[in-house]
Amino acid sequence: MCRWTVHAGEPVFLEQLVLEPCHSLIAQSLHAREAKAETNGDGFGLGWYGERPEPGLYREILPAWSDANLRSLCRQLRARLFFAHVRASTGTATARANCHPFASGRWLFMHNGQIGGYERIRRKVEAMIPDALYPQRHGTTDSEALFLAIAGRGLDDDPVGAVLGGLAEIEALMAGAGIEEPLRFTAALSDGERVYGFRYSSDDRAPTLYFRDFPSGTVLASEPLDIERACWHAVPPNSLVSLRLGGVPEIAPLALAPLSSVA
Amino acid sequence: MCRWTVHAGEPVFLEQLVLEPCHSLIAQSLHAREAKAETNGDGFGLGWYGERPEPGLYREILPAWSDANLRSLCRQLRARLFFAHVRASTGTATARANCHPFASGRWLFMHNGQIGGYERIRRKVEAMIPDALYPQRHGTTDSEALFLAIAGRGLDDDPVGAVLGGLAEIEALMAGAGIEEPLRFTAALSDGERVYGFRYSSDDRAPTLYFRDFPSGTVLASEPLDIERACWHAVPPNSLVSLRLGGVPEIAPLALAPLSSVA
Amino acid sequence: MCRWTVHAGEPVFLEQLVLEPCHSLIAQSLHAREAKAETNGDGFGLGWYGERPEPGLYREILPAWSDANLRSLCRQLRARLFFAHVRASTGTATARANCHPFASGRWLFMHNGQIGGYERIRRKVEAMIPDALYPQRHGTTDSEALFLAIAGRGLDDDPVGAVLGGLAEIEALMAGAGIEEPLRFTAALSDGERVYGFRYSSDDRAPTLYFRDFPSGTVLASEPLDIERACWHAVPPNSLVSLRLGGVPEIAPLALAPLSSVA
Amino acid sequence: MCRWTVHAGEPVFLEQLVLEPCHSLIAQSLHAREAKAETNGDGFGLGWYGERPEPGLYREILPAWSDANLRSLCRQLRARLFFAHVRASTGTATARANCHPFASGRWLFMHNGQIGGYERIRRKVEAMIPDALYPQRHGTTDSEALFLAIAGRGLDDDPVGAVLGGLAEIEALMAGAGIEEPLRFTAALSDGERVYGFRYSSDDRAPTLYFRDFPSGTVLASEPLDIERACWHAVPPNSLVSLRLGGVPEIAPLALAPLSSVA
Repeated sequence: MCRWTVHAGEPVFLEQLVLEPCHSLIAQSLHAREAKAETNGDGFGLGWYGERPEPGLYREILPAWSDANLRSLCRQLRARLFFAHVRASTGTATARANCHPFASGRWLFMHNGQIGGYERIRRKVEAMIPDALYPQRHGTTDSEALFLAIAGRGLDDDPVGAVLGGLAEIEALMAGAGIEEPLRFTAALSDGERVYGFRYSSDDRAPTLYFRDFPSGTVLASEPLDIERACWHAVPPNSLVSLRLGGVPEIAPLALAPLSSVA
Repeated sequence: MCRWTVHAGEPVFLEQLVLEPCHSLIAQSLHAREAKAETNGDGFGLGWYGERPEPGLYREILPAWSDANLRSLCRQLRARLFFAHVRASTGTATARANCHPFASGRWLFMHNGQIGGYERIRRKVEAMIPDALYPQRHGTTDSEALFLAIAGRGLDDDPVGAVLGGLAEIEALMAGAGIEEPLRFTAALSDGERVYGFRYSSDDRAPTLYFRDFPSGTVLASEPLDIERACWHAVPPNSLVSLRLGGVPEIAPLALAPLSSVA
Repeated sequence: MCRWTVHAGEPVFLEQLVLEPCHSLIAQSLHAREAKAETNGDGFGLGWYGERPEPGLYREILPAWSDANLRSLCRQLRARLFFAHVRASTGTATARANCHPFASGRWLFMHNGQIGGYERIRRKVEAMIPDALYPQRHGTTDSEALFLAIAGRGLDDDPVGAVLGGLAEIEALMAGAGIEEPLRFTAALSDGERVYGFRYSSDDRAPTLYFRDFPSGTVLASEPLDIERACWHAVPPNSLVSLRLGGVPEIAPLALAPLSSVA
Repeated sequence: MCRWTVHAGEPVFLEQLVLEPCHSLIAQSLHAREAKAETNGDGFGLGWYGERPEPGLYREILPAWSDANLRSLCRQLRARLFFAHVRASTGTATARANCHPFASGRWLFMHNGQIGGYERIRRKVEAMIPDALYPQRHGTTDSEALFLAIAGRGLDDDPVGAVLGGLAEIEALMAGAGIEEPLRFTAALSDGERVYGFRYSSDDRAPTLYFRDFPSGTVLASEPLDIERACWHAVPPNSLVSLRLGGVPEIAPLALAPLSSVA
């Protein structure tokens, strides 16, 4: 289980959201409030859209709270759209390749959750990754495999459909393997223009997701970054928040129909 | 503030104390119970006496809970006398040179505590280190400076006297600089034969120190490693625990006289 | 391409072979003489057999020449049988999980060489790893996949047969994919009692392998560790050096028959 | 001995100079041509001026050639003025705090060279650092101490005078200690508007320094970044190259008079 934050709107220095709020992601790396794991010290990552179509990535294995490079980058970098993530490993090694966000072409992805019983279906999840994307499989997490499997379904045309189809296929794999642990998926996905926040679980304990409108834009976060909790909207379980850069967030139920049709 | 453990007695695999107890040092790195900082994730270190007079050192900047090398070493290494330490930085960088234990010749040292207002007297503390030892100043912590200053007073002849004299001199420096924060010093020192555990503070909040006799020998620890708390003896504040390899621990009040005579 | 050293015989401090020789593995990490890559600075690893059946592992991403932990461990650890490896990546990330040696149960393995065109058959090589061993696939190198594929053939009964069968299967995969780059394999394998050194290539440029008898035992190395080159025996291409702890090395041609029968 | 590059002019992506040239700094990290140490694999650093007066810093202990974060940052960051440095340690540890460039307020500094016999005068060089700057002493290199000592002389008013005065004082310390090794100093200094490149040595072997005019601006470098060596001007020993952002480089002899007057 992990913690993450997305900003989309006008350009802001990353420090404004990653370092400064009283319950910033850095603070959450030491003391998360609403997470299964209070400490999120198994590496972290930044992804941001700058002047190029492909996002920049900075991922490191130190805890976020102690990395001077992260502080300097957050003071210098200004971006309309960025992802930040602090990691609490569910078993895989503390390695850069296992840190979120993951990038593929113009797409960024990060995840809080877990594929239940992953070790038992790891090969099958990896087999979902098409050959063309398999060289991008750099680590061993379920999250990276899940992202590449989803990306293999074609993100450019129908990103939400690709996610739903991928989740359905994984639930079918889990069912086939007799796995009873849940699939939990609170995740963010973006191509630099559109942002999608998913809050989903196959049981009734989907990891939390909130959003808040700031003057600079919309922030999605695993938990509120400040004490003004009333300003934060909890995304309901099994819902999707979507927005375009400069637009307003829209919430919709995750259309689960494809899941059953696949299973 | 940090957490540490010492073992002295018959040879044991390090894992028996560092990994296996329910509240082992690894567990304390994530959730210390009696520490100012609950998370001790700013690096760690092992020091052990093997076949050579000088101790071995393994220090790393990853959190102890996620380091596979640490697990393998603790499974393989067997030693009569070893130190283990997990670090919660009080401000200095997460770097190997800032991780405990510190070694100088045959001596090992590790520390939980802080020189109050250290930045204001850092140069003066460093000036206490004699020229011959100054090349061993590899990091920037108060703990390493304190150790080298103490070592400069001559550990081989009178280690406890060197510590007391060093602490007195630092308290005098603090007083001279008008520092009101306390000097806290719960530390371990050994030459491979003798072990000294200090619990001292210039205020009334000396960091905790416990010891327990196991079949394999004596264990000193910042907090009990298991749930049998009745088996652990709390070392009183301003006391010294000392033992020889194979001997029994003796507790004595820390003779504070030298402190006032210097100040 | 990498450099490696094995010692098997009486217990010696690792430093005697890893640090002290004028052309030690540490020296080779900066300036290898007979390697495709002169600099082997992409991490390193130690594996050694101590008091347990399973070997210890210490692997790190720093260059070997600059790691103080490595120096301390090599001064402290004494072993009859140990492996040491410095890595020059052929493309995969500098990560601990990509550093040699690799361990599985009692077996240690390390490799200098490359599966030509690996990215094109990576999935198929990974598919050679049996389910029971797949959780041990922690990194992304061809070497680790190759080792686990070999291990899946049963190392305990017929380790050389498992290697030959594995290599044959991989050559067949390469041929099937139309890969023209060679399979190069200069590798060491041990269970703590027996040591096998392989020098093989599908072309005529098998990476070098030498051995020398010292008073303490036999050393296998990618290149001589000292200037007494006359004391080092070059293992011929497509040969196997095998010995038991305390025994003498025997050289035999690698029986290639199984290769063609599979292909 | 190290290698470094400065760019000053119009905004360019860092990759244009740090990654792309055939003999870029990354290439030099593996194979420097004109350096005492061919391999510069003991960490690296970037410093750049963005939207804030203070520069950004990214420093890491991995070799520059293997750091994926460095590649991503160099692709994303665009700056008028930046520093890049690859390190070959002259003895101090591989730690971020020992990596160049160093920053103090608006000033950036990086260095190729060495204070001869540094260990013998380390304390005295550190004593040159004024109290107000001593908290910025994070590492143990001679280069960082030298920079802070120079900064203590007042960079804002007379940066070149501060450097010359600092060097003179250090030469006097060296002479006082009977040190016969040279002081070598090929260094870059900037406040974000002005850039100074120094090539100095107390003997006749000042580390090389070159500059070249590109359409985007002026590049200073330890050695030419490409094969068009005729386009690169060698800065003569004991000279200063200075320029303002948007201006042209001027070369002047380093006025050594202050050196003798201090000594």
